[in-house]
Amino acid sequence: MKGDGENGSVATEIRGAQGNVSETKENAAQTWLRAAKFKEVLGSDSSHKSLFILVAHESGEQGVLLLNKSPFSENVEDIAALIESAELSEIMKNDIFGSYDVIIPSKLNLVKSTLIYPANEKVIAKYRQEEKYIIHETAEDYNTITVEYIKKYQMDLKWLHNVLSKESEAERIIFEDPDPHNGFILSPDIKWDGTSMENLYVLAMIHRNGVRSIRDLTADDLPLLENVRSKSLSAIKEKYGVRPDQIRAYFHYQPCFYHLHIHFVSLKYDAPASTTLAAVLLDDVINNLKIASDYYKRATLTFARKRSDKLLEMFREAGRCEP
Amino acid sequence: MKGDGENGSVATEIRGAQGNVSETKENAAQTWLRAAKFKEVLGSDSSHKSLFILVAHESGEQGVLLLNKSPFSENVEDIAALIESAELSEIMKNDIFGSYDVIIPSKLNLVKSTLIYPANEKVIAKYRQEEKYIIHETAEDYNTITVEYIKKYQMDLKWLHNVLSKESEAERIIFEDPDPHNGFILSPDIKWDGTSMENLYVLAMIHRNGVRSIRDLTADDLPLLENVRSKSLSAIKEKYGVRPDQIRAYFHYQPCFYHLHIHFVSLKYDAPASTTLAAVLLDDVINNLKIASDYYKRATLTFARKRSDKLLEMFREAGRCEP
Repeated sequence: MKGDGENGSVATEIRGAQGNVSETKENAAQTWLRAAKFKEVLGSDSSHKSLFILVAHESGEQGVLLLNKSPFSENVEDIAALIESAELSEIMKNDIFGSYDVIIPSKLNLVKSTLIYPANEKVIAKYRQEEKYIIHETAEDYNTITVEYIKKYQMDLKWLHNVLSKESEAERIIFEDPDPHNGFILSPDIKWDGTSMENLYVLAMIHRNGVRSIRDLTADDLPLLENVRSKSLSAIKEKYGVRPDQIRAYFHYQPCFYHLHIHFVSLKYDAPASTTLAAVLLDDVINNLKIASDYYKRATLTFARKRSDKLLEMFREAGRCEP
Repeated sequence: MKGDGENGSVATEIRGAQGNVSETKENAAQTWLRAAKFKEVLGSDSSHKSLFILVAHESGEQGVLLLNKSPFSENVEDIAALIESAELSEIMKNDIFGSYDVIIPSKLNLVKSTLIYPANEKVIAKYRQEEKYIIHETAEDYNTITVEYIKKYQMDLKWLHNVLSKESEAERIIFEDPDPHNGFILSPDIKWDGTSMENLYVLAMIHRNGVRSIRDLTADDLPLLENVRSKSLSAIKEKYGVRPDQIRAYFHYQPCFYHLHIHFVSLKYDAPASTTLAAVLLDDVINNLKIASDYYKRATLTFARKRSDKLLEMFREAGRCEP
């Protein structure tokens, strides 16, 4: 069971990394950091073991340090070294079970970091963790608020049309059904390295224009959805050897861009935005449209948005969310 | 932003822990571990940075070592110490952005562990990670397979009836609506420490008997669901000061026990089994029953089960899942 592309032994990786860098550059960042003072915790995630902090020099120059504990190496030598050198401090012992704080050698316990300096306010704002708020979007809210939001803030989809017309990224296509009404292109997601099956992440983008999100779907679109589901799962099985019952297929709602697309992700991968308040299973959408053809014209859809989000702001202005 | 109950400085915690343990016991576990050899990776989670391994002595005595990287301390002194002592090895530098492997002092980078020894095969099996498989449960599958599974393997609910009758855990109740048809008891979940608001996790258990899961719900139960939703969110606001739009309320499907209960969890907490293949939002259930009163009598529900799971076995025996 591998993850995050961890393959070689840690010791090798460290030597490799150090061999390739200039001493000067390496010291520059470290020197800059050591002369900085801690200012603020911008964000943290105790489940994933990450910490984002703001630091600053006396001159006022600021930097953002993103720290993320690395996964354990699963290399046999590294595990053997860990067992031999672990220092245990007992917290509790009961029958065969004991809890310990363990100190392991630093080289087996690296932290991956990004240091951004000098950092301006826009960069700092990007990494400042924001509280999220739940929105209940009725069908009426969608028509009066969300449609306006999409018109106003929708990102430019030129990149997507270039992909669909194969003017760009044609070499990345895993599978294509060229049918203009029910066809689609299947490609690896940019977040995926393309090799680690634990993190398999591919994206199906439909050829048809004008379907912005699941809100636009009715039972008339079942042939489209069932076509994407069956052909994508077959293509993934054929290319990567991963069974259909090991793949989770879902939409985001709200999506990141408003041209219908479907995420196909390994069941083993705890992907960002795959929880109930962000993702809707393709199987559930198909089921819902079979139960009521106009399901998405009537449904109240529940999702979460960050504090500074424009859509949340528009819901608040309309009096549909508490300020 | 705190998590996992991390409050004091790490340095203090280590001193505290070491001060309270007998040298002998502490050494016993370490001595046992150092004499052991690595046998097998039982499981790993690269997102949460954990590793479960099987180790064994030459005598054949086996042990299970569960390793879990600790979250970063957010104590100001610990962060200052980290900044001062971090050793950076450059991986990549581009404009203001640089990536580094960082070595930080061991005492700021503890691993929490559990060592179980001697471990028998049953204990080992419990920690061996198993692949999951997706099941599509039609209404017919529910009636012919799942109902049989519930009859055969449902856990004894005496503990639950003791809670509902207040014979046990009465002191833990946050709120009760005693109505036998639409009432419920709200209590902290056993996984929650009761103090860290980041991880807030409370459970509503309905008083009415015979509602096993969302499958048993129809539009007739909307008053029950809306009652639990509004009164639980109010009670959480009053007792913990957390706003309703900061709480995610959901069912598990399949649930862990078959007496209807609802999870109320902080939006900030990445709770286990809160993804689309395990959790169903209370808001979505209410919405679905409004769209079709018999929604859960007709729906195909999609969820994932582990390889050795009895329900998966029964679906496979019935020819409803690939072997």
